[in-house]
Amino acid sequence: MSEIEEAINRVKGRVKGLLITGPDGNSVRSTMTKAEDSKLTGYINQLVDKARSVVRDVNPANDMTLLRFTLKRHEILVTPGRNFRIIVLQEINKSEEGAKPT
Amino acid sequence: MSEIEEAINRVKGRVKGLLITGPDGNSVRSTMTKAEDSKLTGYINQLVDKARSVVRDVNPANDMTLLRFTLKRHEILVTPGRNFRIIVLQEINKSEEGAKPT
Repeated sequence: MSEIEEAINRVKGRVKGLLITGPDGNSVRSTMTKAEDSKLTGYINQLVDKARSVVRDVNPANDMTLLRFTLKRHEILVTPGRNFRIIVLQEINKSEEGAKPT
Repeated sequence: MSEIEEAINRVKGRVKGLLITGPDGNSVRSTMTKAEDSKLTGYINQLVDKARSVVRDVNPANDMTLLRFTLKRHEILVTPGRNFRIIVLQEINKSEEGAKPT
Protein backbone atom coordinates (compact mmCIF):
# COMPACT_ATOMS: atom_id res chain seq x y z
CA MET A 1 0.00 0.00 0.00
CA SER A 2 1.49 3.45 -0.92
CA GLU A 3 2.43 5.98 1.74
CA ILE A 4 -0.49 8.17 0.63
CA GLU A 5 -2.98 5.29 1.02
CA GLU A 6 -1.64 4.62 4.49
CA ALA A 7 -1.96 8.29 5.44
CA ILE A 8 -5.52 8.40 4.10
CA ASN A 9 -6.48 5.26 6.06
CA ARG A 10 -4.95 6.66 9.24
CA VAL A 11 -7.19 9.77 9.21
CA LYS A 12 -10.39 8.12 7.95
CA GLY A 13 -12.20 8.11 11.35
CA ARG A 14 -13.39 11.69 11.68
CA VAL A 15 -12.45 12.70 8.20
CA LYS A 16 -15.45 12.85 5.88
CA GLY A 17 -13.42 13.66 2.81
CA LEU A 18 -9.81 14.03 1.76
CA LEU A 19 -8.71 15.55 -1.49
CA ILE A 20 -5.24 16.14 -2.90
CA THR A 21 -4.92 18.51 -5.81
CA GLY A 22 -1.96 18.88 -8.14
CA PRO A 23 -0.23 22.01 -9.48
CA ASP A 24 -3.15 22.75 -11.82
CA GLY A 25 -5.61 22.67 -8.92
CA ASN A 26 -7.30 19.51 -10.13
CA SER A 27 -7.90 16.47 -7.96
CA VAL A 28 -5.19 13.78 -8.12
CA ARG A 29 -6.42 11.72 -5.20
CA SER A 30 -9.73 11.84 -3.42
CA THR A 31 -12.02 9.90 -1.14
CA MET A 32 -15.05 11.84 -2.43
CA THR A 33 -17.20 11.73 -5.58
CA LYS A 34 -16.19 13.60 -8.74
CA ALA A 35 -19.05 16.03 -8.22
CA GLU A 36 -17.98 16.77 -4.65
CA ASP A 37 -14.38 17.12 -5.82
CA SER A 38 -15.05 19.70 -8.48
CA LYS A 39 -17.41 21.68 -6.22
CA LEU A 40 -14.91 21.77 -3.34
CA THR A 41 -11.80 22.44 -5.44
CA GLY A 42 -13.53 25.19 -7.38
CA TYR A 43 -14.42 27.13 -4.27
CA ILE A 44 -11.43 26.31 -2.10
CA ASN A 45 -8.82 27.12 -4.73
CA GLN A 46 -10.26 30.62 -5.20
CA LEU A 47 -10.20 31.26 -1.45
CA VAL A 48 -6.74 29.86 -0.85
CA ASP A 49 -5.33 31.93 -3.72
CA LYS A 50 -7.01 35.04 -2.27
CA ALA A 51 -5.83 34.28 1.28
CA ARG A 52 -2.25 33.65 0.16
CA SER A 53 -2.11 36.88 -1.81
CA VAL A 54 -3.47 38.79 1.20
CA VAL A 55 -0.81 37.28 3.46
CA ARG A 56 1.92 38.20 0.98
CA ASP A 57 0.53 41.74 0.54
CA VAL A 58 0.79 42.28 4.29
CA ASN A 59 4.30 40.76 4.46
CA PRO A 60 6.02 39.38 1.32
CA ALA A 61 8.37 37.24 3.44
CA ASN A 62 5.45 35.47 5.06
CA ASP A 63 3.38 32.54 3.80
CA MET A 64 0.27 30.66 4.82
CA THR A 65 0.84 27.10 5.96
CA LEU A 66 -2.73 26.17 6.90
CA LEU A 67 -6.19 27.63 6.31
CA ARG A 68 -8.96 26.32 8.54
CA PHE A 69 -12.69 27.02 8.24
CA THR A 70 -14.80 26.01 11.20
CA LEU A 71 -18.41 25.52 10.18
CA LYS A 72 -21.45 24.42 12.20
CA ARG A 73 -20.62 20.71 12.24
CA HIS A 74 -17.56 20.40 10.03
CA GLU A 75 -14.13 21.85 9.50
CA ILE A 76 -12.31 22.34 6.22
CA LEU A 77 -8.53 22.33 6.52
CA VAL A 78 -6.38 23.31 3.57
CA THR A 79 -2.63 22.79 3.46
CA PRO A 80 -1.41 24.88 0.52
CA GLY A 81 1.82 23.21 -0.59
CA ARG A 82 3.87 24.55 -3.55
CA ASN A 83 2.78 21.90 -6.09
CA PHE A 84 -0.15 20.34 -4.29
CA ARG A 85 -2.94 21.13 -1.86
CA ILE A 86 -4.41 18.82 0.73
CA ILE A 87 -8.04 19.58 1.54
CA VAL A 88 -9.58 17.74 4.49
CA LEU A 89 -13.26 17.85 5.42
CA GLN A 90 -13.68 16.60 8.98
CA GLU A 91 -16.45 16.43 11.56
CA ILE A 92 -16.18 18.57 14.64
CA ASN A 93 -15.98 16.55 17.86
CA LYS A 94 -19.05 17.09 20.04
CA SER A 95 -16.59 18.21 22.79
CA GLU A 96 -15.00 20.78 20.46
CA GLU A 97 -18.28 22.45 19.61
CA GLY A 98 -18.23 25.90 21.20
CA ALA A 99 -14.68 25.24 22.45
CA LYS A 100 -12.75 28.51 22.52
CA PRO A 101 -9.84 28.80 20.05
CA THR A 102 -6.57 28.54 22.03
CA MET B 1 -13.16 47.28 34.24
CA SER B 2 -15.58 46.26 31.45
CA GLU B 3 -16.09 42.64 30.47
CA ILE B 4 -14.31 43.33 27.16
CA GLU B 5 -11.27 44.80 28.93
CA GLU B 6 -11.11 41.75 31.18
CA ALA B 7 -11.33 39.42 28.19
CA ILE B 8 -8.58 41.36 26.37
CA ASN B 9 -6.32 41.23 29.44
CA ARG B 10 -6.89 37.49 29.82
CA VAL B 11 -5.57 36.70 26.32
CA LYS B 12 -2.75 39.25 26.23
CA GLY B 13 0.11 36.71 26.75
CA ARG B 14 0.48 35.13 23.31
CA VAL B 15 -1.81 37.53 21.58
CA LYS B 16 0.05 40.16 19.60
CA GLY B 17 -3.05 42.02 18.53
CA LEU B 18 -6.77 41.96 19.14
CA LEU B 19 -9.26 43.88 17.09
CA ILE B 20 -13.04 44.07 17.32
CA THR B 21 -14.89 45.50 14.34
CA GLY B 22 -18.49 46.71 14.28
CA PRO B 23 -21.24 46.14 11.68
CA ASP B 24 -19.57 48.53 9.23
CA GLY B 25 -16.31 46.59 9.43
CA ASN B 26 -14.46 49.39 11.18
CA SER B 27 -12.47 48.94 14.37
CA VAL B 28 -14.39 49.62 17.60
CA ARG B 29 -11.77 48.26 19.96
CA SER B 30 -8.17 47.41 19.31
CA THR B 31 -4.84 46.78 20.98
CA MET B 32 -3.00 47.76 17.78
CA THR B 33 -2.11 51.05 16.06
CA LYS B 34 -4.57 52.77 13.69
CA ALA B 35 -2.33 51.91 10.74
CA GLU B 36 -2.23 48.21 11.69
CA ASP B 37 -5.99 48.27 12.25
CA SER B 38 -6.89 49.65 8.85
CA LYS B 39 -4.43 47.34 7.08
CA LEU B 40 -5.70 44.22 8.86
CA THR B 41 -9.40 45.07 8.65
CA GLY B 42 -9.15 45.95 4.97
CA TYR B 43 -7.68 42.59 4.05
CA ILE B 44 -9.46 40.39 6.54
CA ASN B 45 -12.95 41.74 5.85
CA GLN B 46 -12.60 40.96 2.14
CA LEU B 47 -11.48 37.42 2.88
CA VAL B 48 -14.10 36.70 5.52
CA ASP B 49 -16.86 37.98 3.22
CA LYS B 50 -15.54 35.76 0.43
CA ALA B 51 -15.18 32.72 2.71
CA ARG B 52 -18.69 33.15 4.13
CA SER B 53 -20.24 33.44 0.68
CA VAL B 54 -18.38 30.30 -0.43
CA VAL B 55 -19.65 28.38 2.60
CA ARG B 56 -23.22 29.51 1.91
CA ASP B 57 -22.91 28.69 -1.83
CA VAL B 58 -21.96 25.12 -0.92
CA ASN B 59 -24.72 24.82 1.70
CA PRO B 60 -27.10 27.77 2.43
CA ALA B 61 -27.98 26.29 5.85
CA ASN B 62 -24.36 26.32 6.91
CA ASP B 63 -22.25 29.17 8.32
CA MET B 64 -18.66 29.80 9.21
CA THR B 65 -17.95 30.22 12.91
CA LEU B 66 -14.17 30.61 12.76
CA LEU B 67 -11.57 31.28 10.10
CA ARG B 68 -7.98 30.53 11.03
CA PHE B 69 -4.86 31.35 8.99
CA THR B 70 -1.67 29.69 10.16
CA LEU B 71 1.37 31.61 8.96
CA LYS B 72 5.07 30.99 9.54
CA ARG B 73 5.19 32.39 13.09
CA HIS B 74 1.71 33.75 13.68
CA GLU B 75 -1.91 32.81 13.44
CA ILE B 76 -4.83 35.05 12.54
CA LEU B 77 -8.16 33.92 13.97
CA VAL B 78 -11.37 35.58 12.85
CA THR B 79 -14.70 35.05 14.59
CA PRO B 80 -17.32 36.42 12.18
CA GLY B 81 -20.25 37.39 14.40
CA ARG B 82 -23.46 38.90 12.96
CA ASN B 83 -22.76 42.52 14.00
CA PHE B 84 -19.12 42.30 14.94
CA ARG B 85 -15.91 40.47 14.12
CA ILE B 86 -13.14 39.55 16.49
CA ILE B 87 -9.72 39.35 14.85
CA VAL B 88 -6.86 37.92 16.91
CA LEU B 89 -3.21 37.91 15.84
CA GLN B 90 -1.31 35.43 18.00
CA GLU B 91 2.15 33.90 18.04
CA ILE B 92 2.49 30.21 17.34
CA ASN B 93 3.91 28.23 20.28
CA LYS B 94 7.33 26.79 19.41
CA SER B 95 5.78 23.34 20.24
CA GLU B 96 2.93 23.94 17.77
CA GLU B 97 5.22 24.71 14.85
CA GLY B 98 4.92 21.83 12.41
CA ALA B 99 2.30 20.20 14.66
CA LYS B 100 -0.16 18.26 12.53
CA PRO B 101 -3.72 19.59 12.47
CA THR B 102 -5.94 17.21 14.52
